[in-house]
Amino acid sequence: MIVHAVPQIEDRSEAIVGSGASPLDAMRLAIRRLEAAGSTYIAIPCNTAHHWYSALREWSRVQIFHIAEVTCVALSKQPLNNGAKIALLATAGTLASGFYQDRLRAYGFRYLAATPEGSRDLAELGIRLVKAGEIKRGACLFEQCIAALRRRGAEAIVLGCTEIPIALDLIASKTRGHVVDSTQALAEACVCWWRSYAATATGLTQGTA
Amino acid sequence: MIVHAVPQIEDRSEAIVGSGASPLDAMRLAIRRLEAAGSTYIAIPCNTAHHWYSALREWSRVQIFHIAEVTCVALSKQPLNNGAKIALLATAGTLASGFYQDRLRAYGFRYLAATPEGSRDLAELGIRLVKAGEIKRGACLFEQCIAALRRRGAEAIVLGCTEIPIALDLIASKTRGHVVDSTQALAEACVCWWRSYAATATGLTQGTA
Repeated sequence: MIVHAVPQIEDRSEAIVGSGASPLDAMRLAIRRLEAAGSTYIAIPCNTAHHWYSALREWSRVQIFHIAEVTCVALSKQPLNNGAKIALLATAGTLASGFYQDRLRAYGFRYLAATPEGSRDLAELGIRLVKAGEIKRGACLFEQCIAALRRRGAEAIVLGCTEIPIALDLIASKTRGHVVDSTQALAEACVCWWRSYAATATGLTQGTA
Repeated sequence: MIVHAVPQIEDRSEAIVGSGASPLDAMRLAIRRLEAAGSTYIAIPCNTAHHWYSALREWSRVQIFHIAEVTCVALSKQPLNNGAKIALLATAGTLASGFYQDRLRAYGFRYLAATPEGSRDLAELGIRLVKAGEIKRGACLFEQCIAALRRRGAEAIVLGCTEIPIALDLIASKTRGHVVDSTQALAEACVCWWRSYAATATGLTQGTA
């Protein structure tokens, strides 16, 4: 595994909502570096960055997972009713971009929007707290959001920002049973791809005779 | 930061003590990949791997920190007596290689060897437990080793294997005051280098007028 960890990249959410510079050039450079290091598949563990997925996919010489795509695949494996209502906790940028909403609908789910004054603003505040190191305080806000969205009829809640599962895990939150974790879905997609790649590349498969 | 994380690389300690294949080719490939990704300085957070430091340094187009060197620098900043007795907790491979002992002497310290039946074998067992995920059990063994070495007159104990601080931190060990952590010394060397590099590269220094 090659990891490109560059915290200086411009804030993705601020760029989408129009108050910050674009991170696209820095992300393109990251992809060239990962390619140069021999990467054969790329995972981007930042939901908001997927606003630029098409541009990055076009630029990249290797394939890139889409975090919302693999999260929807994980969702469809859950025992949910047809047309289940799914809510989304995410940054303002991810919500504004719409790539999760589009995919949820494409997978046959109904999207339950968070209300601005309710869980939407609370989630955004929670994400900022986690980024500032106030992880437990952030976690409490996420738990409130999840409870509010459940009351409004959400059958599952997508944790659509990588700060959220870190916080819920730290307090061993009992809400975990009602959520789908995009970070975990992305990690599982990587492991699944690696297993099939390693099997092909090194002849690890058995019973070929 | 570019991280090359490849757990499949051959066991360094086993290679040194003669019971396993050499990891040198895999480590050389890792260096080429890090160079290709644009790295300008390399840190290797595995003490035992430094048995091959000279070969890697010769192969690499960029500089590489030496973990024992930066640990000795950290030791020399501590309030220790002249000719202080320093003990070392490390893998069998690191102990057999001798690169720590050489540097400790070069920095004016006396090396207090662990006895085979005492802390040496306990430390090796603790490292294996941590690698197997039995972190707390490993931590208890490291605490026993540190206490035994203190009783024998060690004024400081070098944690010369990256598994050890992880375990001691997990149990919030009170032995931390008597040890020098090689992982931390390496991380601090990286930060120190980065600050001076960033200052030079981007003109962040002030007062040049």
